[in-house]
Amino acid sequence: MSGRISDSTVRRLSLYLRMLRDLERAGAEFVSSSQLAEPSGATSAQVRKDLSHFGSFGKRGRGYSVEGLVRALEKILGLSRSWRLALVGVGKIGSALLGYGGLAARGFDVVAAFDVDEAKIGTRAHGLRIRPMTDLGAVIAECGAEIGVVATPTEVAAEIAAELERAGVGAILNFAPIELSEVNGVPIRTVDIVLELEGLSYLMSEEGRRAGSGP
Amino acid sequence: MSGRISDSTVRRLSLYLRMLRDLERAGAEFVSSSQLAEPSGATSAQVRKDLSHFGSFGKRGRGYSVEGLVRALEKILGLSRSWRLALVGVGKIGSALLGYGGLAARGFDVVAAFDVDEAKIGTRAHGLRIRPMTDLGAVIAECGAEIGVVATPTEVAAEIAAELERAGVGAILNFAPIELSEVNGVPIRTVDIVLELEGLSYLMSEEGRRAGSGP
Repeated sequence: MSGRISDSTVRRLSLYLRMLRDLERAGAEFVSSSQLAEPSGATSAQVRKDLSHFGSFGKRGRGYSVEGLVRALEKILGLSRSWRLALVGVGKIGSALLGYGGLAARGFDVVAAFDVDEAKIGTRAHGLRIRPMTDLGAVIAECGAEIGVVATPTEVAAEIAAELERAGVGAILNFAPIELSEVNGVPIRTVDIVLELEGLSYLMSEEGRRAGSGP
Repeated sequence: MSGRISDSTVRRLSLYLRMLRDLERAGAEFVSSSQLAEPSGATSAQVRKDLSHFGSFGKRGRGYSVEGLVRALEKILGLSRSWRLALVGVGKIGSALLGYGGLAARGFDVVAAFDVDEAKIGTRAHGLRIRPMTDLGAVIAECGAEIGVVATPTEVAAEIAAELERAGVGAILNFAPIELSEVNGVPIRTVDIVLELEGLSYLMSEEGRRAGSGP
């Protein structure tokens, strides 16, 4: 396809892929667009539209080939390979991330971890030795990490993102509660728990409930 | 205003509020729309449009009153009060959440925690006694938790969300990597780290880079 597809389309493709992998493990050969639509809350027309961007995967009357679609979506999403992550900040969130087996299982391996705390440097967290920030550039060059993870206090998050970009990562996942802007075309996604909670508190507030039941 | 405002507008309002609180602490009296635009990457026209939904906060030539806008946004977002959270699942993510001081500081207090693990039940995590799932309804009724947090394995997440809804919470924050659909009008937000990473891997993939540099 030409032109970048939207974040929400990429999000739905990820959800289709999850379901397809489950179906593949269960031995299913074909899947309908309405089955695929379910986990993302999309319509079957939306599924057909999303998939049509990337070629023709359907077989008339039988639905989509599960195996074919798994391989195609993995390729499109860059998931037919694994990615190496470098984590900066081994505090509460960083530690939880290191201990989260779901990442490696999905092809995202944390291969390096950094902190500024002298008490942590040199110790191991979930098998990974914590390195000093001064080694960031050298270690990332050596281990070839492609994705930087910022799990630092807010005040230094932008500076750390810029350091990661200079060290050569191709993308950044940010857990600090601040919107970081792209540095030299390196895309950044922010996971911001408080922002999600504030979205919910809006919906439960007087204003949100009035708007929700309004015209 | 009439009609529900979009999630992305609510998100920007949260970001404006963060900046405004910083400015308030620093003693600033007025702020321009272009200053407010910065952290969210919006334009100043967008800021003026977002704020115009809720009334008239600007003073010609002086910008917006910081204090007035803080109070107004807190009211709109439901943040002039605090909210009580009930956490289900005290594993890695659940524990990290309990230990994250940033939540209470922003008005979100975890007041109850539940698990099915007999070894955890009765012990304390960050000062909070872990309760058995069988007490969910009674404890939530007693402590008046308004937001349920699902930090369980994927397989049981939908069931737990339904239990939380029956127990009377008004909103749900979900950390299981699955899109849960609204139960009886209770809004659900999902924080899905792997989905964010897959969005980044798409952008770094051949397909994403071709699309990004395309027409």
